[in-house]
Amino acid sequence: MYYCEPRLQYPVRVEKPNPLFAKMLQQAIGGVEGEIRVCLQYFFQGWGQRGPKKYRDMLLQTATEEIGHIEMLATAVALNLEGAPVSLQEAAAKDGAVNAVLGGMNPRHFLSAGLAATPENSNGVPFNCSHVYATGNIAGDMLANATAEATGRTLACRLHDMTDDPGMKDMLSFLIARDTMHQQQWLAVIEELGGFTDQLPVPNSFPQSEENQTFSYAYFTSQADGGVPPTLADARFATGPSLDGKGQFSVFPNRPMGQEPQLAPGPKSAYSQKEQQLGLLDKIKQTIAGA
Amino acid sequence: MYYCEPRLQYPVRVEKPNPLFAKMLQQAIGGVEGEIRVCLQYFFQGWGQRGPKKYRDMLLQTATEEIGHIEMLATAVALNLEGAPVSLQEAAAKDGAVNAVLGGMNPRHFLSAGLAATPENSNGVPFNCSHVYATGNIAGDMLANATAEATGRTLACRLHDMTDDPGMKDMLSFLIARDTMHQQQWLAVIEELGGFTDQLPVPNSFPQSEENQTFSYAYFTSQADGGVPPTLADARFATGPSLDGKGQFSVFPNRPMGQEPQLAPGPKSAYSQKEQQLGLLDKIKQTIAGA
Amino acid sequence: MYYCEPRLQYPVRVEKPNPLFAKMLQQAIGGVEGEIRVCLQYFFQGWGQRGPKKYRDMLLQTATEEIGHIEMLATAVALNLEGAPVSLQEAAAKDGAVNAVLGGMNPRHFLSAGLAATPENSNGVPFNCSHVYATGNIAGDMLANATAEATGRTLACRLHDMTDDPGMKDMLSFLIARDTMHQQQWLAVIEELGGFTDQLPVPNSFPQSEENQTFSYAYFTSQADGGVPPTLADARFATGPSLDGKGQFSVFPNRPMGQEPQLAPGPKSAYSQKEQQLGLLDKIKQTIAGA
Amino acid sequence: MYYCEPRLQYPVRVEKPNPLFAKMLQQAIGGVEGEIRVCLQYFFQGWGQRGPKKYRDMLLQTATEEIGHIEMLATAVALNLEGAPVSLQEAAAKDGAVNAVLGGMNPRHFLSAGLAATPENSNGVPFNCSHVYATGNIAGDMLANATAEATGRTLACRLHDMTDDPGMKDMLSFLIARDTMHQQQWLAVIEELGGFTDQLPVPNSFPQSEENQTFSYAYFTSQADGGVPPTLADARFATGPSLDGKGQFSVFPNRPMGQEPQLAPGPKSAYSQKEQQLGLLDKIKQTIAGA
Amino acid sequence: MYYCEPRLQYPVRVEKPNPLFAKMLQQAIGGVEGEIRVCLQYFFQGWGQRGPKKYRDMLLQTATEEIGHIEMLATAVALNLEGAPVSLQEAAAKDGAVNAVLGGMNPRHFLSAGLAATPENSNGVPFNCSHVYATGNIAGDMLANATAEATGRTLACRLHDMTDDPGMKDMLSFLIARDTMHQQQWLAVIEELGGFTDQLPVPNSFPQSEENQTFSYAYFTSQADGGVPPTLADARFATGPSLDGKGQFSVFPNRPMGQEPQLAPGPKSAYSQKEQQLGLLDKIKQTIAGA
Amino acid sequence: MYYCEPRLQYPVRVEKPNPLFAKMLQQAIGGVEGEIRVCLQYFFQGWGQRGPKKYRDMLLQTATEEIGHIEMLATAVALNLEGAPVSLQEAAAKDGAVNAVLGGMNPRHFLSAGLAATPENSNGVPFNCSHVYATGNIAGDMLANATAEATGRTLACRLHDMTDDPGMKDMLSFLIARDTMHQQQWLAVIEELGGFTDQLPVPNSFPQSEENQTFSYAYFTSQADGGVPPTLADARFATGPSLDGKGQFSVFPNRPMGQEPQLAPGPKSAYSQKEQQLGLLDKIKQTIAGA
Repeated sequence: MYYCEPRLQYPVRVEKPNPLFAKMLQQAIGGVEGEIRVCLQYFFQGWGQRGPKKYRDMLLQTATEEIGHIEMLATAVALNLEGAPVSLQEAAAKDGAVNAVLGGMNPRHFLSAGLAATPENSNGVPFNCSHVYATGNIAGDMLANATAEATGRTLACRLHDMTDDPGMKDMLSFLIARDTMHQQQWLAVIEELGGFTDQLPVPNSFPQSEENQTFSYAYFTSQADGGVPPTLADARFATGPSLDGKGQFSVFPNRPMGQEPQLAPGPKSAYSQKEQQLGLLDKIKQTIAGA
Repeated sequence: MYYCEPRLQYPVRVEKPNPLFAKMLQQAIGGVEGEIRVCLQYFFQGWGQRGPKKYRDMLLQTATEEIGHIEMLATAVALNLEGAPVSLQEAAAKDGAVNAVLGGMNPRHFLSAGLAATPENSNGVPFNCSHVYATGNIAGDMLANATAEATGRTLACRLHDMTDDPGMKDMLSFLIARDTMHQQQWLAVIEELGGFTDQLPVPNSFPQSEENQTFSYAYFTSQADGGVPPTLADARFATGPSLDGKGQFSVFPNRPMGQEPQLAPGPKSAYSQKEQQLGLLDKIKQTIAGA
Repeated sequence: MYYCEPRLQYPVRVEKPNPLFAKMLQQAIGGVEGEIRVCLQYFFQGWGQRGPKKYRDMLLQTATEEIGHIEMLATAVALNLEGAPVSLQEAAAKDGAVNAVLGGMNPRHFLSAGLAATPENSNGVPFNCSHVYATGNIAGDMLANATAEATGRTLACRLHDMTDDPGMKDMLSFLIARDTMHQQQWLAVIEELGGFTDQLPVPNSFPQSEENQTFSYAYFTSQADGGVPPTLADARFATGPSLDGKGQFSVFPNRPMGQEPQLAPGPKSAYSQKEQQLGLLDKIKQTIAGA
Repeated sequence: MYYCEPRLQYPVRVEKPNPLFAKMLQQAIGGVEGEIRVCLQYFFQGWGQRGPKKYRDMLLQTATEEIGHIEMLATAVALNLEGAPVSLQEAAAKDGAVNAVLGGMNPRHFLSAGLAATPENSNGVPFNCSHVYATGNIAGDMLANATAEATGRTLACRLHDMTDDPGMKDMLSFLIARDTMHQQQWLAVIEELGGFTDQLPVPNSFPQSEENQTFSYAYFTSQADGGVPPTLADARFATGPSLDGKGQFSVFPNRPMGQEPQLAPGPKSAYSQKEQQLGLLDKIKQTIAGA
Repeated sequence: MYYCEPRLQYPVRVEKPNPLFAKMLQQAIGGVEGEIRVCLQYFFQGWGQRGPKKYRDMLLQTATEEIGHIEMLATAVALNLEGAPVSLQEAAAKDGAVNAVLGGMNPRHFLSAGLAATPENSNGVPFNCSHVYATGNIAGDMLANATAEATGRTLACRLHDMTDDPGMKDMLSFLIARDTMHQQQWLAVIEELGGFTDQLPVPNSFPQSEENQTFSYAYFTSQADGGVPPTLADARFATGPSLDGKGQFSVFPNRPMGQEPQLAPGPKSAYSQKEQQLGLLDKIKQTIAGA
Repeated sequence: MYYCEPRLQYPVRVEKPNPLFAKMLQQAIGGVEGEIRVCLQYFFQGWGQRGPKKYRDMLLQTATEEIGHIEMLATAVALNLEGAPVSLQEAAAKDGAVNAVLGGMNPRHFLSAGLAATPENSNGVPFNCSHVYATGNIAGDMLANATAEATGRTLACRLHDMTDDPGMKDMLSFLIARDTMHQQQWLAVIEELGGFTDQLPVPNSFPQSEENQTFSYAYFTSQADGGVPPTLADARFATGPSLDGKGQFSVFPNRPMGQEPQLAPGPKSAYSQKEQQLGLLDKIKQTIAGA
């Protein structure tokens, strides 16, 4: 279970409120690279852990930290909205620039929230929990988490350059540092478990003898002319030993190994058009003619 | 641009059609771990590549292969639906089991598609393109792709165990092999670029001097009692050198470094209740009283 | 900021795991009546509070409790999934009932999560954060919260009757009690602020002189015959003083007070069909003819 | 504006309530082929009409009829749910078939609605208003409407065969008849405007001289071998005059006419990996090497 | 069933068309506080009513009125779009302000609808019918409706201040008045049923003896230090009799009463990593070590 | 299966990059009128074809062409974003117009994609695969496809007028031409199958004797006064032979033929309020009183 404390994890200051930057910050709250996502993702991974207890502990500690990050960003959005124009005449009057700020703001910041953050991305699209990845496989989960932190840190860096407000830059320099650590943290679990040599392919508990090993280490090219793009001929994945040491990379120009599919006509009650419901004989004839 | 060929990449056979397995297979078509996702993800990463040409080439080759995987799975769904019960009386009559199969099927397989695949997951939730991750950062993208293939292979292994149809097992043994390779492929790009030592933190182009480096390699615990869970005390990410060789891991019991936030009252036209719109003096008094 | 503790707020026991009940419980996690919703709703209301500090405090305390409720329910789902059938042959073999349990399960519980909870409702539809209502108006927010707890308690009561597992009944008897309190809690805020007499209409800060007061306390009927349904003639809202004491209820058979709308033809570049782009004269003629 | 009447447009009777059929009927309420969609689609097309007044009239009349269809189907769902099992023990006891009906039901019919219809499709996915097509172009709108009624009638026919309840069959025979008319109705508008000869291509107000007419009547094949599938060689769209009489159909094997795209490196603040941010010279060299 | 009439319920005039205000008005059409929502919500509540006939009557009368409100707002959007800039050069030329209006408009108002309203909110996010709350419990439904009207009136007041167009102000003054009445109307039903004393807790038909009454009237605090925020110590919900007269409020510092959860390892076919699939003995050992 | 080629189907040039036009172009990528939709729609229709082989061939050829169209548009978006402002100070400095361009851009073009296209519409709403219509009925599918191409061409024409960049105009003149052909193509299939005379009503395989033919060719008016709008009295669908030659059009003023619905009280465990759970006798009494 969980506890709270009224202070923020790290200071949040805004010297020059900017409603456009408030809109941009929403990507870090409710975007797919944002904090609601990692918070819920780490919680659901932790709550569903069926492996050693340590993984549950590890995940819930960090999930709990992430609530505080959403709180910081929500505070930052609210502070950036203070003094925002909230009427068309006001916006027009200020600088004659035809409502440019009001037009660029997230309308719901004012209309729906009365100048506060929403659980949405920078386009105002609400966060959707289908982005919470929790597979029950620790290696898959750690890769998902490293991805979330890599894309999250890239976003935070872009936001950092977008503003020149010292308070915002300071807050982002903290969040960027935490993303640095969290990338490390999840990949360190993979290293601790033996690194990619042991952990690949994910899941490592499926016997590779049951996969079609002819194709397990082959880079398929899809060029219409059957060739290999010259830029790829000596790529790391085109030649040499595989990363898990279990095979040799090769290049395989993709070609059809399967049949041309032939589906049976549906039952009458599927109500295709009459012309689609040919007798079997007609079908055979037509197929011969078409071959 | 793109070309087609009427045959499948690999044979698709179904010996004992099973509409419940058709429902399950949908997860591999329109689920977040599925083929529509990787197909579009690789395409959008390729089409937006601003770095060396080789990355565009690499991505589009594999994106094109993935269209063929959606095609195989869509064919497998259609074949598994042949002979499915399509009326309540028929289902009830067959085995008295109160429409168990019809109740377990994806209703839209019959009602909307006339016994064919849909671009949805196993719960019938349509695929949503917010899951197409293409960040413009090659390391972030490669991690996202390795994640997609790790979760995709885990799904395919679960489906492989769920069925005993030899045709379906054969098709899945091929798709599992391709997921093995694709995991390798994307992680090999990271290795080729110098491995995690060089590539972390993502993005590696942001000067770390601008992040708050006090917190860049610290594992934050969030225990209410300020302690560290014993299972984590000697974890790989709690002590020793960081994965990128640029720091030392440490443990940091999380505590508030920031202020208790104080938002200004909104403007009158935000129409909070009157009781929320206190004068500044009242606000100060109340804050003092509440402190 | 926030802290965690490894134990649950209240015991969670499952004596007879039931994967169908696991599916049902999802409604209390990721449904619109569920715990993710109230948790995020109270957090966002608290983080955006611009009124007296007490409202922020009040909301964050309860938001934090709600994380623990999601945790309890996620644990309950995971425990109910233990022993669930995960292959078609297994299901078929057990009781010949054509895979009834496997067909009735949430497929993603196994395929995507490896037998754990997901942030989705009982139909497998992911929670969408558009359901997080935080308006900046305390009375509107409290009504939204009372609604969430009323629908949440109704759901919990239905789940309570659906199971006969003593552990599940015990957990639900706790959650139902908490919903009882939370309904009280949010409505008590309205009472504390003066009750509906003072708080209505929401927002109470908009001068009623600016609304069209002819229609402020009139029940509009919409019957085609201009009549009033006899069941409604003496309803509380049809006659007598209004709840806020500011008006008298009356009944008003709805009738058109406005014009028949006439939109101007769009510009050429809107590319309607040519036949829609009549000259103004034609338009006048046609309108006369049509009148 | 609008009026109501307490009776239904057409009788709705259910002799043998069936909660599985209630689930199936939801497709006709909240599915993309369903009644909420056509109702809102016709309303929004009508309310936005900028052409002759007659189109607004025509659309609003039918939109209003469609509200009554949603009402009929919602009533049918509620009646089919009467007597549905609402507890796991009850379901199990009745026939030992491991909760088959309860497992097959839409859980929200009981949990969220207390045995009533919801605005969702047969998988429990809520209707999303992005399916309301209203383009401002009458020919595009009429095609969209004819499509909606064609897919809607196909759905209704499938539902008609799925049940043997005489009341349900009667209700569906009425809705099927209305779909027959509505297909006619929207296509009749196109005929009245001069038929496809005049109305194609949509929009007919864009001067065809500004499109690249080399490709306006050419069927592009995409075969990797540059060939034409024999089944298509003499198709109506491959040879002969076009439907609008403005061109001659031909076959054109698709081939690249464009360049290999070369995007400029992004700005530093887009934070791709360092390796993606090559100097211009490096880029040229690499491109030469890769060509 | 339903009828229409070509005139509007109330006049809609726009003196100075403003495409930015058209975007803002969309929140009142397709936002969660908007008219599509209340219209469908009242319809579905009415159509699913299983209690006294009067509730069905009451709901359908008002649902029908709400169609007319969507119509008014859709008309207002269309009128505000007349004369909007629809090309980049036009926008740039007018005032050199780099396309400020065109950039601030909802692009789909022109691109998809040809200058008409869409069933979306002010960010262009389509309305999603998951927001239609109809629980089968009249008290829960009435609270949901009062919430919808409270948030709807708050939105309308914000829009009223945002514009200085006399026609728009007049239309909004009417809609605000209707929201005043509708708040009254739904809460009056609760009063008619005995007020909160009788109606709480919702549902009032579940025997409170079956809930865990120790916690039914306790305000849980979640402070890490076990304390109570001073602002809350004497809140209405912290002390004194409960609103329903059935209990006494108290304060309860939240603490764990439950266990640390221990999930069983999943079956082999769930394909977690090998390292997660420890034998039972290992698991016990590890748990002991970790305790 | 599928192949690729590095060059584009048709040249894509941008002379004056414009990030606002990049936002607008997104509607043609991820909007409901866009290329992802038609691409996936034709693929799923082709992969699920149960009728003559020719339909599968026909659909897959064009689906494959459409991938190349998405590629062209994604390239156009990326080129339009080159040089876009990516910081608030930069935007402000350039022309003092308060960040008008940055405010008008799609924020995710920079924040999430690093200046590249996303699979979203012009409002930044991700494409949702529920828009992929594939019914199993060839006539329904062809109408859906003609609709998609009609709305797609309307969109492309609007975009064509919105820009004066010669490269963009050239690209759009090609895409408009392809939409011209694709409208023809799908409608030609209907003609080849006998035209609307044979193909209507869709599905033409359901025996019309089983629909309620009294209402099959009647235009229902919904006017409250029972009248017929004068603009519609002699419409093509109001009088004369039906389009399929199987009936005569007539006008039928809509009136209730059904009953006032009476739903049974729900079971106790549905937990409506007590007041909704009247005994049967009370219910009868009340109904009599209310009649």
